[in-house]
Parts: sequence; C-alpha cells; structure tokens
Amino acid sequence: MRYVDTRPKTEVGTMTLPAGYYADPGYFARELEAVHLRMWLYAGRVEDVPEPGSYVLRQVANASVVLVRDEGGHIRAFHNVCRHRGTRLCKEASGRFSGTIQCKYHAWTYRLDGTLKKAPHMENVAGFREEDWPLSKVHVATWDGLLFISFAEDPIPFSEHLNGMDTRFRNWRMHELVTVERRVYQLRANWKLIIQNYHECLHCPIAHPQLQRITHFLSGDNEPPQPTWLGSRMDLGPGFTTLTADGKTRRRPLPHLTDEERRHVYYYAVLPNMLLNLAPDYVVTFMFNPQGVDRTEVTCHWLMHPDEVARPGFDPSDAVDFWHLTNEQDWELSDLAQAGISSRGYRPGPFSNREEMLTAMDRWVLERVGTL
Amino acid sequence: MRYVDTRPKTEVGTMTLPAGYYADPGYFARELEAVHLRMWLYAGRVEDVPEPGSYVLRQVANASVVLVRDEGGHIRAFHNVCRHRGTRLCKEASGRFSGTIQCKYHAWTYRLDGTLKKAPHMENVAGFREEDWPLSKVHVATWDGLLFISFAEDPIPFSEHLNGMDTRFRNWRMHELVTVERRVYQLRANWKLIIQNYHECLHCPIAHPQLQRITHFLSGDNEPPQPTWLGSRMDLGPGFTTLTADGKTRRRPLPHLTDEERRHVYYYAVLPNMLLNLAPDYVVTFMFNPQGVDRTEVTCHWLMHPDEVARPGFDPSDAVDFWHLTNEQDWELSDLAQAGISSRGYRPGPFSNREEMLTAMDRWVLERVGTL
Amino acid sequence: MRYVDTRPKTEVGTMTLPAGYYADPGYFARELEAVHLRMWLYAGRVEDVPEPGSYVLRQVANASVVLVRDEGGHIRAFHNVCRHRGTRLCKEASGRFSGTIQCKYHAWTYRLDGTLKKAPHMENVAGFREEDWPLSKVHVATWDGLLFISFAEDPIPFSEHLNGMDTRFRNWRMHELVTVERRVYQLRANWKLIIQNYHECLHCPIAHPQLQRITHFLSGDNEPPQPTWLGSRMDLGPGFTTLTADGKTRRRPLPHLTDEERRHVYYYAVLPNMLLNLAPDYVVTFMFNPQGVDRTEVTCHWLMHPDEVARPGFDPSDAVDFWHLTNEQDWELSDLAQAGISSRGYRPGPFSNREEMLTAMDRWVLERVGTL
Repeated sequence: MRYVDTRPKTEVGTMTLPAGYYADPGYFARELEAVHLRMWLYAGRVEDVPEPGSYVLRQVANASVVLVRDEGGHIRAFHNVCRHRGTRLCKEASGRFSGTIQCKYHAWTYRLDGTLKKAPHMENVAGFREEDWPLSKVHVATWDGLLFISFAEDPIPFSEHLNGMDTRFRNWRMHELVTVERRVYQLRANWKLIIQNYHECLHCPIAHPQLQRITHFLSGDNEPPQPTWLGSRMDLGPGFTTLTADGKTRRRPLPHLTDEERRHVYYYAVLPNMLLNLAPDYVVTFMFNPQGVDRTEVTCHWLMHPDEVARPGFDPSDAVDFWHLTNEQDWELSDLAQAGISSRGYRPGPFSNREEMLTAMDRWVLERVGTL
Repeated sequence: MRYVDTRPKTEVGTMTLPAGYYADPGYFARELEAVHLRMWLYAGRVEDVPEPGSYVLRQVANASVVLVRDEGGHIRAFHNVCRHRGTRLCKEASGRFSGTIQCKYHAWTYRLDGTLKKAPHMENVAGFREEDWPLSKVHVATWDGLLFISFAEDPIPFSEHLNGMDTRFRNWRMHELVTVERRVYQLRANWKLIIQNYHECLHCPIAHPQLQRITHFLSGDNEPPQPTWLGSRMDLGPGFTTLTADGKTRRRPLPHLTDEERRHVYYYAVLPNMLLNLAPDYVVTFMFNPQGVDRTEVTCHWLMHPDEVARPGFDPSDAVDFWHLTNEQDWELSDLAQAGISSRGYRPGPFSNREEMLTAMDRWVLERVGTL
Repeated sequence: MRYVDTRPKTEVGTMTLPAGYYADPGYFARELEAVHLRMWLYAGRVEDVPEPGSYVLRQVANASVVLVRDEGGHIRAFHNVCRHRGTRLCKEASGRFSGTIQCKYHAWTYRLDGTLKKAPHMENVAGFREEDWPLSKVHVATWDGLLFISFAEDPIPFSEHLNGMDTRFRNWRMHELVTVERRVYQLRANWKLIIQNYHECLHCPIAHPQLQRITHFLSGDNEPPQPTWLGSRMDLGPGFTTLTADGKTRRRPLPHLTDEERRHVYYYAVLPNMLLNLAPDYVVTFMFNPQGVDRTEVTCHWLMHPDEVARPGFDPSDAVDFWHLTNEQDWELSDLAQAGISSRGYRPGPFSNREEMLTAMDRWVLERVGTL
C-alpha cells in the first residue's frame, strides 16, 4: 500500500458533540440566524438566468428568493414577496419575466432591478412614493459562473468570503463550463452531517468501493481549515484519469489544468451550503437548502466543457452515474447517522486522528452559534 | 368609465400588520379564545337537520359539535363527547338518530334534547343522578334558515349579534330557499386573509376578469364597519342581471326583492366565520372552520328559490360554476398571501385608500385579541 | 341471568382525569421517563431470535433497540447506535448477523455480546481502548418464552417485576408454544386508554356481541391491583371451550391446564406495555410501542401448542379471526375516546363501581408520574 497515516496522533478525548447539535430544532434555528442568514450562500449557476427576465427561485429556510437577470444584464436577488400586502410573487421554480415582475394580486409591478414601477390605486394615498417600495434586496455575487447570495444587511466582501478559492481553482474556468445534469435529493439529515461526511474518506473502503478503487482513501491531503472553507484533495491512482465507474472517460481534461491538477480530485466545502468536487474533466457542485434540523435538500449540478458537449455522441452519464451512486451511498449513511444520533442510545464518541476536518467544522459552528 | 374613486384620501402610514398576525400559532390560539369561542358562529342551514333526529357535525378548532333537531322540532347543539368517559359520540358528518343518542362504548343514552336517559351500570354509584349528566350544551340560534352556534357560556343576544342584518336582507327570504350545491375547500391561508380578500375588489380586474365584466370593481359601495359585520354592495352593469359567466340566467329574480336590490350584488361578512353573497336570483354562504394559523376549511352553500328548482330543466350550474371559479382564483391568492407573509422577506406594506375594510378588520381583531 | 354485580358500591366522586392525562404531549414525555424508560417492557418472543446472530429491532419512543442472540446462546439487547459517530447500526426489523455487528459507516465491529472487536483507524488515538466502547447495553430478561427489556440503569429484579405472574400461568408453558400469527395495529389513542379498555367488560354487550355470547360480561372476576400488573378472569359459558366465533375449536386444550383453568379466559396487563390473554387452547400477547401521546403501535402474537400446529389440516384462523375482530372493535372505541377526550367539550365523568381497574390504573400512573 502506497499510503500511510502520517497525521499527528490525537487523544481519545476529541469527541462528537451532544445530540442536540444535530437534533435540536432550537439549535438549528440559532444556526440559521448566525450562519445561513449572515454568510454568503451558494445559489446556483449564472447560466440558470441566461437572459434579461430569466429567473430562478431559491429557498433558504423560510426565505424565498427570486434571482433574476435585469435589462442591463446584471443578476439581482429579491425576496419573493410583494411590498403591498406580502403576497408571494412567483410560484414556478424558474421562468422568464416579460420585462417586469407583476404581483398577481393587485398588479403592483416592479422593474427587473427591483424598483417599483407602478402601484395601482395608490394615487390617493398621501405621501406614497414608488421609490420607497422596491422589492426587498438580497445581495448577489458571482465567482466563475457560480451565484452566491447573502441575506445579511451588510455582508463581508465576497472576495473575503472566497478567501483565495477563486484563484486556486481558476484553471477550471467554471464560468466556461455548462450544466449537463441537475439532480435534487431530499435527505433526512442535518446539514452538518452531510458536510462532515464529505470531509473524511475513512468510510470510502466500506461505502464506496468504486470510488476507493480510483482514489485511495488514505491519499487524502487536507488543507488547514479556513474561516469560510474546508478542503482536501485525493490522488487519482495509476491508470485513472477521472471519477467514473472505470476511472476513465472519453472526455478530454479541461484545457487549462496543470499536470498536477490533472492527477487529483479536489473536495472542498464553501461554508455553509456548498460542496465542490473538481475532477480533471468535470465539476460537481452541491447546493444545500436546510429545511429543518433533520431535513436538507441537496441540488447537484454536473458541469462540463462546451467543446465536449458539442462532440458527436457526447454522453455525460459516466460522470453522472458515478456521483449519483456515490451520493446515494453517502445520503444513506447521513440519514442513518441522523437516526442514530437522534435516538435515546446516542452518546458522544471518539474521533480518530484522521477526522480532524470534522472537529474543525464543529469548532467553526460552535464559535458562530455558541454552545448547546 | 362610470366609476371613480371618491373615497377619502389616506396617509401612507396605514399599513399591513406584522407577520405574526397571520402566521403565529400563539396569536391564532388567542384569536380562537377571544373571537371564535366567544362569538356566534355560522354553522350551516336549518334544512341540514330537517326532521327530529336529523343531525350534522360541525368542527371549530378542536371542538366537535352535534347539531340535532329534537322531538319537539327545536334545534339543539351539544359537544360531541359522552359525559361518561369522554368518548366521541358521532363519527359520521351527518345522519339521523333513532330517537336517542347512544354512545357506542358503554351505551350511555341521551334524549335528543341532550338530557341523559339511561346510564347502564351506574345503579351502585351512590349519589349518581341522570339529571346531573346531560350532554354539554352549545348555544343555538337561527336567522332566516341559517344556523348559528356559540361556545360562550353567556353569549350576547343573537339579535344584538345580527345588528340589523336580518331586516336588511329580509327580502331574500333565505329561509324559503333551498341548498342546490355544497362544496368544501381546504385553504392554506389564515382565516382573516380570506375575509380581507372578500372585502376589496381592487384585485378583481386582474384575478376575476369574468366578475369584473359584470360588476365593475370601482362600483363597490362600502358600509361603515359594524361591531359584528362588514359589508358592501356592487352594481350589476348594464344588461347584466346576476353573477354568472355571461351575467344572465334563466332563473327569475327572487320574488320579493325591490328594484334596487335587483340591481346589485351584496358582499357581507358576519364576523368571524361567515361570508354572504346575495345576488338577485341566488345566495352563496361561506362557512369557515379555522383549523390552524395557516389552514382554513371553507364550506359553500348555493341557495335558490324552490319554484326555480321545481321548473323543468332546472340547472344551477351557471351560478355554481361562476362562484367555484371565483373561489379558486381567490383561494390561490389567499394561499400566496399566506406564503409570502410567512416568509422571511415580508415587511408590512401600505394600504390604499380603497382597502379601508381591511384596516377595519385589523382594528376589530386587535381590539378583541390584543396586540402581537 | 347468572351473574350479578357484587362489587362494593362507590361514590359519584370517582371520576376520569383531566384531558391532559391522555392528550398533553408534556405529560406523555413525563410518562416515558417515569414509567416506560424505567420499568421492564415486553419486547416479544424468545423464538424471535432463534439462533446465534438472529436479531430483531424494537422501538420504544425514540429508542431503537437490537435484541440479538449471542454466540453463547444468551439474548442481549443494545441501543441500535454505533459508539463511534452515533450511526444507526441496523435498518431491517429483523435478520441475522454473521458473527459480528458491523457499522456500515466506518466498519466499527462489535461482537454479538456487544463488546467492540475492531475500530479501524483508531491506532493513532492515544488512550483509545476497545474495551471502553462496547455497545450501550439494555437489560434483558425472559419469562416462559417472553422477552423483556429495561432501559433503567439499575432496574428492579425481573422476578420482583413479575411478582408471581410466572407461577400463576406456568401451566400454559408459554415457552413451549409457537407463534402462529403476528399482526401490527396503529392506534390513534393514548396507551393508557388501550389498557383501560382491556380492563372492563361493561362495553362487551355493545361492542363485542360475539365475545359476550361466550364469556358473560358480568362474569369478570378482578384481582386486587398489583404494583406491576392488573388482572381478571372471565367464565367460559356453558358449552363453550375457548374464544372463537362459535366458542369451540378443533384444538385440544393445552396439556397441563387444570380443570379450573380450562373454564376461564384470563385478561392480564403486565404494566406498562403488555396485555396477555390466555384461553384454554391459545394465548394472545399484545406489545405496545407508545409513539406519541395519541399514537400507539400494538403488535399481537397468537401462540399455540406445537402438537396442534403439527396436526394435519391445522388452521389457527378461528382464534386469529376472533381476536382480530375484537381488536378492531376495541381500537375503534379507543380512537373515539382519544378524539373525544382531546376535544374542547370534554369534562371528567363518573366511573361506575365496575370500573375499579381503571381507577387503579389512574392511581398507579399518578403515583409514578405525578399530577398534571
């Protein structure tokens, strides 16, 4: 075996946290306030809103957000709530506005930049001015074709949030890639369990035999945890060039990767709601919508290079099938972890020295949300 | 256009209320105690219990009530709970008792007036007297064929509750009309949103094109709000005689209406759980059962004159279809309002000067239930 | 009529308890802590785990328990939770382990006696010792082929819990019997209502005409209530030999019963989660899983003698059908009781002098759980 555990030894006292950390609705509510509604959140792909008027909805806890491209080509985000009497503006998950956003109830009509254009029957309300009642804004930022939003009144600068992620993966040129598949998964698990599952590969030999064959579970090389992200990379074994059932593919590697980048698969989490998996020829992004302490919706996008998509006989299913299978394996484990931790018999257990990303995640949450 | 807005101007400060008013289960519980369980509630039609022994069940929050006609022809209302061990007496929504009401568990048997007739096996319980254990009474009153109940120990006189409604609409002789259709709707909306939707027609041009063609949305003439009811009327446009798809009907107007009454449609709410819509040839009543802060069951009765029902080829579907369509349009808007108000982006918004019935409703609730 | 009410007279002041006793989730939570999670609980049949490695799952509130027969033939019970990161170990309701219990997540592997055999990747965790991390134990005991578990840290001795039940029914030799049918029922009723329904037969003439024909409802002879059980017996009427539709059967009586035992049917509750019904030729056990204040799962086992099972043309359906019908009748009454008690109209009502087992049950609960 080429790989050995060279991580520092730990002490047996490093333990999982009490059940409420994953199972208490009150703690989950505190997390939403302190983390999800304060930080930048991954919200999909720029290509989801290709033209002026194109929109998609995003749900984060009880917030519904409209992401729309305005007439000037800028992407905007608004609460999906009319400023008149609070009616939900859009029902469909995606679509296209014809120039304006009109409430179905009383026809209050907003421009695509969110400003109120027309409020019927308000002419006899003294002091009413259209400019006072724009749609409630949500901050938007983009990174290489990826959309982010923030509910914070004054979020930290997005570049500070990325904290180098953009330069690190610039060779993938994600803004040039296109979505070839999108799948939505409903988990019965706390959002943190899904991130923690992603950040150790000790379960790979048992749960993911097909993955384990291609990238040895001990090949993982973790970066020091960062304030907004966690990451590691794994080595593609000899003869393997990507993550598919046989570790090979007809697709060419992305054109600008270095040799080093072509020999690895990168596992990153942009906290708190994005996982990013970068292989030499494709990228998978995972977008989380935490719906409850024990329910999380995960949306996966598979991204590939347009030149490959244009080739005759293009078929992304080797990559889609690989990650769909891996997902199903991980989601079952996360659901079983939630079930066990929520049950009476659970008591904190000891981490190994190779689960240091999980304890980093725990510290990160406790620092922001506070103790149980 | 014949109609103009002649209402007094308002100021922009008249606003919708905070989200909890429509979305907080605690506030809803206070409403039930202060409003629904204290006032008179619409409970259906006298004809629902045509003969001695006939009964219907009504559910109000967690209260189940049996409405039954007794041997003397009087309508009685009781909690649907045996006085022995608390068993629910009736399961079927309607039916007929054969002389007595018998609990299926231990055969405690009540007369149709609610008094306990027989309690098997209680003969060796010292001090037990049948007269001490009648069914728990709920107050009943009737108005022109409409049934009302009150859970209050000592409700205000029913005539005080009606406060003139009975004389105002006496020409419809609702007690002579018969139910030709009954439909039940499940809304995902707070009960107040449904009443407020009913009391402004600013949404009519957008949501109800077929209604708007017949009764112009600016033709509404509101009465000053009353302690127990709200009401307005709309003008039937030239050439129209009722609310149907084409504004016409083969039915004759109700025989005792004045010319004035034949030229209008009347929109009234008898608070807190009845809407009344009176057209020249038919009446629709709406009965609310508030099941949760965001769930309301609405039961509609369509009432017509028996002479029309008896005519060959009688077909009420023009009226039924018209209101069913209008309902579906309004219920969708009410559900969207609930969704929007319950979501994070909601903030109070400004009322126009033509939404004064909505603010009257808000004041009415706040006076009885208190602030949030 | 042969039977008369010879029970002591009571006073009308003996009443059912306030609604919260059956309907308040907070009181239910207190019951679980004070009763179910402290006492011995019926958990099925020894024959459910016939061989080393055989296991069944049992759910009690939010506790999931694995009952497994170890290599030495002893039955063990453990919380269904891995000691590493809390993952649920087993998903299937029953099955067979091949020598060890392995967590699907990281392959922590336990022996069938619960001790930790192997914890991969823990070799660099200083101070980690396998012997410190066995599966969390749940106590197990058996009585004549019946399995019991206790979540208490230090439960009372099982013989003290049985308190004579084992000698009383030893002639049934339940360990020799085999399960011929198993049915699971979902009730919308509090667990106590099901036990109380079982402990009076005043409802039998109304609800169970087929039962009433065979064992007269006034033939019940109650024992004085005990700290851990309640019980009574009823007389088989002239010409009847068991509980079936016609009160007869092709099965022979169990071989070791006395003449006295062959003339009765025994109705016992081993508190808090077992009902036991012993007829001359078969036994039915009822196992409760209280899932919420108003939801209880009941699992019935029908037990018969292996000699009868081996006879040509053996058919247990006369006994299965009889109790299935009786169950359906009782479950409907229990559900109606829950519905009535949970509704606004409920007020405590008077017990008769023949419902003394119910008041004994109430006192028993109040003593352990405290007042509402």
